[in-house]
Amino acid sequence: MAIIDQDMQECVNQCLACYKICLSTAAGHCLEAGGRHAEPPHLRLMFACAELCRSSAHLMLLGSDDHRIACRACAEICERCAEDCERIGDMEICVLACRRCAESCGRMAN
Amino acid sequence: MAIIDQDMQECVNQCLACYKICLSTAAGHCLEAGGRHAEPPHLRLMFACAELCRSSAHLMLLGSDDHRIACRACAEICERCAEDCERIGDMEICVLACRRCAESCGRMAN
Amino acid sequence: MAIIDQDMQECVNQCLACYKICLSTAAGHCLEAGGRHAEPPHLRLMFACAELCRSSAHLMLLGSDDHRIACRACAEICERCAEDCERIGDMEICVLACRRCAESCGRMAN
Amino acid sequence: MAIIDQDMQECVNQCLACYKICLSTAAGHCLEAGGRHAEPPHLRLMFACAELCRSSAHLMLLGSDDHRIACRACAEICERCAEDCERIGDMEICVLACRRCAESCGRMAN
Repeated sequence: MAIIDQDMQECVNQCLACYKICLSTAAGHCLEAGGRHAEPPHLRLMFACAELCRSSAHLMLLGSDDHRIACRACAEICERCAEDCERIGDMEICVLACRRCAESCGRMAN
Repeated sequence: MAIIDQDMQECVNQCLACYKICLSTAAGHCLEAGGRHAEPPHLRLMFACAELCRSSAHLMLLGSDDHRIACRACAEICERCAEDCERIGDMEICVLACRRCAESCGRMAN
Repeated sequence: MAIIDQDMQECVNQCLACYKICLSTAAGHCLEAGGRHAEPPHLRLMFACAELCRSSAHLMLLGSDDHRIACRACAEICERCAEDCERIGDMEICVLACRRCAESCGRMAN
Repeated sequence: MAIIDQDMQECVNQCLACYKICLSTAAGHCLEAGGRHAEPPHLRLMFACAELCRSSAHLMLLGSDDHRIACRACAEICERCAEDCERIGDMEICVLACRRCAESCGRMAN
């Protein structure tokens, strides 16, 4: 990767890891499990979190000077998604991915 | 569209209009025109703005309670993109689309 | 829009209209309605269709010579989504958007 | 990741690796290098390839039965991007990523 330093590459990787886990867990595990896992607001939050993780990685890969704007938004939604996954329960992998991504994006946003 | 009210539909439309104009102008007009239009930081900002407009529309279409996070980020980058397009000059359509989107997203973010 | 002719603009608009309807109907109406509407394979197809509509529009907006590749894929998944929405029933708006997009992308793909 | 088998996870990873390399190389290296690297059709192809890699990964992560449609499109554009990067020269990392992704998506498409 051209002009991206190592800290930013690490953050891109956390964003894409969180994107992968949120999207595949929502569309795989949660939709199938039903019950609390399939509550519409929970599913929407999972899909929304996946989308902002994807966009945050995108702005960093573009080398945009304004990646901070996307990283800040990503950190914020990842925190909410982690909290909601804890509330639902049995979502440890997702909670962990969201927390790691929120922390990494939080650093890049400053 | 299911659960999206009219104000939000209007904001989705402004986001997608700005996405279309920024992406097609960057990849069409700016890359071909060369000179200031093809300065890498300007092009990256145009692509980054297109991406956050796209994501902001996405969270609203999902009906996510957290669309505000994306709308706030979108309003911020649209303001920067409008300023940069004014600096470059001969980008009136893009300036207008960014300003309208920033205003609409700014309202949704509150 | 810079270098995009009118037929292509029309196809971009059909793709984005179908994207909007599939995504908002899946995440709004279908998740809430439950029953057949919330069958995981149906929801995944709606989300997948939204994604390929989005990408097909993206390649046309980029002015890529290879937009045909994306338009062909988009036409194919829109046909499947239209059929599945007919099977589920009470999804006329979605069926219509998918059919229109499939037809428009089918023309651009040749 | 919930319902995704190991072959598909490998393909998701190849798609996201190619996405990362194409996008960051186009927006970083190519835009800065100028000359043949900054030819608009080359840049558009790089951005288009990044987009279809992203979408192909997305359909697999969704667990969509129709991921084949996206994988086929992805394999096709990756082949074209690899050829174009060979023509431009000094793009070995990109050529390799595109070839690996094309091969992996080609297998998933069948």
